[in-house]
Amino acid sequence: MAMIEKEKEMRKADRLEQQIRFVVEVDKVKNIFRQTYLTDGKRKENDAEHSWHLALMAVLLREHMQEETDLTKVIIMVLIHDLVEIDAGDTYAYDEKGAQTKRAREVRAAERIFGLLPEDQAMYFRSLWDEFEEYESADAKFAHLLDNFQPLLLNDASGGRSWKEHEVHHSQVCRRNERIPETSREIWEKMQEIMEKHIKEGHLYAD
Amino acid sequence: MAMIEKEKEMRKADRLEQQIRFVVEVDKVKNIFRQTYLTDGKRKENDAEHSWHLALMAVLLREHMQEETDLTKVIIMVLIHDLVEIDAGDTYAYDEKGAQTKRAREVRAAERIFGLLPEDQAMYFRSLWDEFEEYESADAKFAHLLDNFQPLLLNDASGGRSWKEHEVHHSQVCRRNERIPETSREIWEKMQEIMEKHIKEGHLYAD
Repeated sequence: MAMIEKEKEMRKADRLEQQIRFVVEVDKVKNIFRQTYLTDGKRKENDAEHSWHLALMAVLLREHMQEETDLTKVIIMVLIHDLVEIDAGDTYAYDEKGAQTKRAREVRAAERIFGLLPEDQAMYFRSLWDEFEEYESADAKFAHLLDNFQPLLLNDASGGRSWKEHEVHHSQVCRRNERIPETSREIWEKMQEIMEKHIKEGHLYAD
Repeated sequence: MAMIEKEKEMRKADRLEQQIRFVVEVDKVKNIFRQTYLTDGKRKENDAEHSWHLALMAVLLREHMQEETDLTKVIIMVLIHDLVEIDAGDTYAYDEKGAQTKRAREVRAAERIFGLLPEDQAMYFRSLWDEFEEYESADAKFAHLLDNFQPLLLNDASGGRSWKEHEVHHSQVCRRNERIPETSREIWEKMQEIMEKHIKEGHLYAD
């Protein structure tokens, strides 16, 4: 009996060591910068800040989704969705060349980074990341809505700065957001309202 | 019937406006810097990054808690626990003078910031923040463990830099962590191991 207890404790300690290695490794996303500016326009946002913002928005905006969603799962999904960028880097939403190699780079990254964890947790995070990437389930659609709506709000607050810098066209934003109308009608209406304002102000190209 | 539908839609749209105002306002925590350095030691960490890290750790470390905890609640608690610092600023853990006025500053901040939300969501966030501050429930103890363990891991990775800069004593860290042993035995053991290493290396003063 004492032996079994001892083994259990050692197993727990081993798991904790693996978890700590992962926690320390993922600190690196705080240095992966995106193309979106903070609301004050002073600097670009990093992946950790972005993921924090999405998780908080998940709690608040769930009521606007057309389908039932699993809040805890969506939160964890958005907390980890950008960890692959530690190895693969951030590919800007409208970078067509980067998009061609993005998937292969990100899959290798997922294997290495989630692989630091105890096997059950590695598999869980990998399955959530896969679900996010597949963009089919109600939870993945909610997570993508957050991932697209949040930078739009920051862009709005910072005078459309990242759209201007990258000469983004309205049709590009609409293509990227083509599943938003079926995910949340009222949020899609709000997004359209914001885009129309920025087309008028010349920050976003009408096509 | 059509009128009721119309009213419901308007109510939803009003809620969305309030939620957006809150989401945009809390972007400011990305500019509230803490005393802890990132693992690479290059710059200090901000509250959004810190909160993201705690939420992710909550998912991974729950298994090490002595008591049953509500994961979703703990995640939301850590996501919002530092929002009051938008108005009240960050008070360093070992700043005794700042600590005297901290509570009053933070309560005013909680009223203003959570007050931006629709009433039910404002009350929910306020109740979670109060529970965190009271530090009595199993969920609050888990959240505080994360809030204390994460900077210790960053401090360890960055050579005890913020301890050195603030000439922190081992007894101060122990006092701040006095409820960790009852929250998680194995994490407290790990924390002691890390502190002992840094005492030997001269980054943390033995008393």
